[in-house]
Amino acid sequence: MTERVHNFSAGPCTLPLSVLEEGQAEFVDYHGAGMSLIEMSHRGKHFVAVHEEAIDLVRTVYGVPDEFDVLFLQGGATLQFAMVPMNLLKSGERGAYVNSGTWAKGAIADAQHYGDVYTAWDGTDCNFTRMPNTGEIEIQSGTRYLHLTSNETIGGIRFGDWPKVDVPLVGDMSSDYMSRPVPWDRFDLVYGGAQKNLGPAGMALVIIRKTVARENNQNIGRYLRYDIQADKDSMFNTPPVFPIYMLGKVLKWMRDQGGVEAMERQAEDKAGILYRAIDDSGGYYRCPVDVDSRSVMNVVFRLPSEDLEKTFLSGADAAGLLNLKGHRSVGGIRASIYNAMPKEGVQALASFMSDFQGAHPA
Amino acid sequence: MTERVHNFSAGPCTLPLSVLEEGQAEFVDYHGAGMSLIEMSHRGKHFVAVHEEAIDLVRTVYGVPDEFDVLFLQGGATLQFAMVPMNLLKSGERGAYVNSGTWAKGAIADAQHYGDVYTAWDGTDCNFTRMPNTGEIEIQSGTRYLHLTSNETIGGIRFGDWPKVDVPLVGDMSSDYMSRPVPWDRFDLVYGGAQKNLGPAGMALVIIRKTVARENNQNIGRYLRYDIQADKDSMFNTPPVFPIYMLGKVLKWMRDQGGVEAMERQAEDKAGILYRAIDDSGGYYRCPVDVDSRSVMNVVFRLPSEDLEKTFLSGADAAGLLNLKGHRSVGGIRASIYNAMPKEGVQALASFMSDFQGAHPA
Repeated sequence: MTERVHNFSAGPCTLPLSVLEEGQAEFVDYHGAGMSLIEMSHRGKHFVAVHEEAIDLVRTVYGVPDEFDVLFLQGGATLQFAMVPMNLLKSGERGAYVNSGTWAKGAIADAQHYGDVYTAWDGTDCNFTRMPNTGEIEIQSGTRYLHLTSNETIGGIRFGDWPKVDVPLVGDMSSDYMSRPVPWDRFDLVYGGAQKNLGPAGMALVIIRKTVARENNQNIGRYLRYDIQADKDSMFNTPPVFPIYMLGKVLKWMRDQGGVEAMERQAEDKAGILYRAIDDSGGYYRCPVDVDSRSVMNVVFRLPSEDLEKTFLSGADAAGLLNLKGHRSVGGIRASIYNAMPKEGVQALASFMSDFQGAHPA
Repeated sequence: MTERVHNFSAGPCTLPLSVLEEGQAEFVDYHGAGMSLIEMSHRGKHFVAVHEEAIDLVRTVYGVPDEFDVLFLQGGATLQFAMVPMNLLKSGERGAYVNSGTWAKGAIADAQHYGDVYTAWDGTDCNFTRMPNTGEIEIQSGTRYLHLTSNETIGGIRFGDWPKVDVPLVGDMSSDYMSRPVPWDRFDLVYGGAQKNLGPAGMALVIIRKTVARENNQNIGRYLRYDIQADKDSMFNTPPVFPIYMLGKVLKWMRDQGGVEAMERQAEDKAGILYRAIDDSGGYYRCPVDVDSRSVMNVVFRLPSEDLEKTFLSGADAAGLLNLKGHRSVGGIRASIYNAMPKEGVQALASFMSDFQGAHPA
C-alpha cells in the first residue's frame, strides 16, 4: 500500500484508517453471510441491525434526548435547505436566517420558495469574517425559528456561543457535526451532510424534535415529510445503505475516543496548533477571521502574496499535505481538520509552515 | 471466505462478484493516492474522472441520445415521484398515470400535491396481474405526459411493449433499468433507484430530455430542479460518491457482457427457465400473472398451500437460495433475477423446485 497522506480536504474528507480497514475486510462477504452488505435487503436482519445500531450510536455519542428523532435522509444538507421551511413554516409564520456566508445564503435562497423568510443578521458588511452576537440578531414577530449555520466551511468562521433568542433554533451542522455538544433544549432541528465528520457522502443526518416532525406540512411528497420519515424510521424507501453502515463505524470510533466531548477537546487542541503557528509568525501568516469566531474545523489563512501561496500549496503537496487550497471564491489556504484528522497531520502542517516561512521570507 | 450464496433479494440485491472484489481491493488506498476514494473531494481529479466515466458508460451501454442529460440524484425513485410533477406540470397541464400496482400508486399519491393528475388505466380490477394494452389507456386533453412503471417488483408484471400514445412517456424503470433497450424518441424522462440492476442503494439515475430539463419550474428548492442538476452535471452539491463509483464498475461489467442487448437476452433466458419450471409443473407451481405481462426480473409464483410455501422457503434457504419470500403484501414466492444474477443461480432454483415438488406432492 502507498503511504497514507494527510488529507486536508473540506469534504468529502479524511476518515479514520481503522474504519476504512474494517470496511475493506467486510466488503465482499459480510460477517460470513456469503454476500456483501450492499447486496442485502434493507429489511433483512443484517442491515436492520446496522441501521438500529447507527441510530443508537448517534443518540449516545451526541447525547440526543428521547424527545428527538434521528433520521438518515438523502440529498445532503442542500435538500434540507428546502425541506426545513417546506415542513416547518405554516401560513403566517416566518423563518429568520443568519446570513453568515455561502451556505447560509443557499439556505435562504431555497427557503424563499416555501415561506416568508428574512435575514435576522447579515455578515455581508464584514465580509463574513465573524458570526453575530445574540444582541445583533433581530428577531421579528411571528418568527417560527432562527436558522443558523453552525460553522461556515468557506469563511472559516463558527458560532463560538449559540445565540440565546426567544425562538427555537434550526442548525445546519454540516461542517462541525458532532465536534461539540449541542444544547438540545434550544433546538427544534439540526441537520447536516455526513461527508465531513460522519462518513462518506450521500447522506444527511437530521435530528428533529418529535413534536415538530409530527406537526409538519402534509401536502408535499412523502419522501419530503419529516413525519413519514420519522414514523418509518428512515426506511420509508430504500435508505442509503453504505453511508449508514460507514457512519456506524465512524460513530464507534468516536465513542471509543471518548465521544463528542473528546472530539471537542481534540478539535480545540488541533486548531490551537495551527492558530498559534499563524499568530506566532510575526504577520507572515494572517487569519482574516475575528478571534471569537475562528473555526476549529476549517482554519483559513493567507500568506504575504498570492505567489507565495502557490509555492506553499505545491510544496505542501509534495510533502504529503494535500488539499490545502482555499475555496475558489475566497482564495488563500484552508486546512480542514475534521474529527478524523490525526494530531500528527496538524503538527506536520505546522512544521511545514514554519519551515516554509524560513525558506521564503516575505 | 464463506461460499457465495444465490441472493434473490428484490433490492438491494446481488451484484457481480468481480465488481465487489475490485471495490474491495481499492477500498483503503485508491489507485495509489494514499487515501480512499470516499475520502476525496468530489471536485478532485480522481472522483471527477470516475463521475464522467460513469456518465459516459450510461450513455454507451444504454444507448442514450445526446438530446438527454444523465443525472445522478439522491432520494431514490421515491423522491422522483414528487420531482417529476413538481418540475414538469405547468398550470393547465395534466399528468396521466397507469396504476399498475404499489409503486405506481406511490407515484400517483405524490404527484397529486404538485398538479392535476389522473389515472389513465387502473389495474385494481384485475388485481394487478397484467399491464394494459395501448388501446386501454385513456389519455385526456391537456395531458403533459403518461407516467408508467416499467416493471412492478411486487406483482411481477411488466410492460412487454411500450404504450404508443400521443403524449411523451415518463418511466419509472427502477426494477428493470438497463435490462432492455428504450425507445428514447417516445420518452421525456426515465428514472429509477440504482439498487437493483445498477449498483448499491443511495442513488437515483435520471435520464431527462435536455429541453424538458430547461423548461422546469423555477420556484422550488435548487436541489429539486432538473435544470440546475443538469447544468451542474449532478455536482450542484456533494453527489453520492460511493454509489456513482460502484455504478461505473457495474456498467463496465455490463459493457463487457455485451451491453443492454446482452442483458435483455440473458434476462429472457433466465426468466424462461423459471417460467418453464412453473408451467411444466402440472399446476403445482402457479404464476398469477398474464403471460404477456410476465416480468423477466421478478418471477412470482405460488405453491398448492401456504404451508408448502413456508417449507419451500426454509428448504431453499438451507440450499443457499436466499430471499425468495414474496412481498408481505401479496405473499407467495418471488425470485428477483436482476442483471447480476448468474444463470447458475436460476438453474439451481429450477432444480430445487423440481426436487421439492417430488418430495412434497400436493
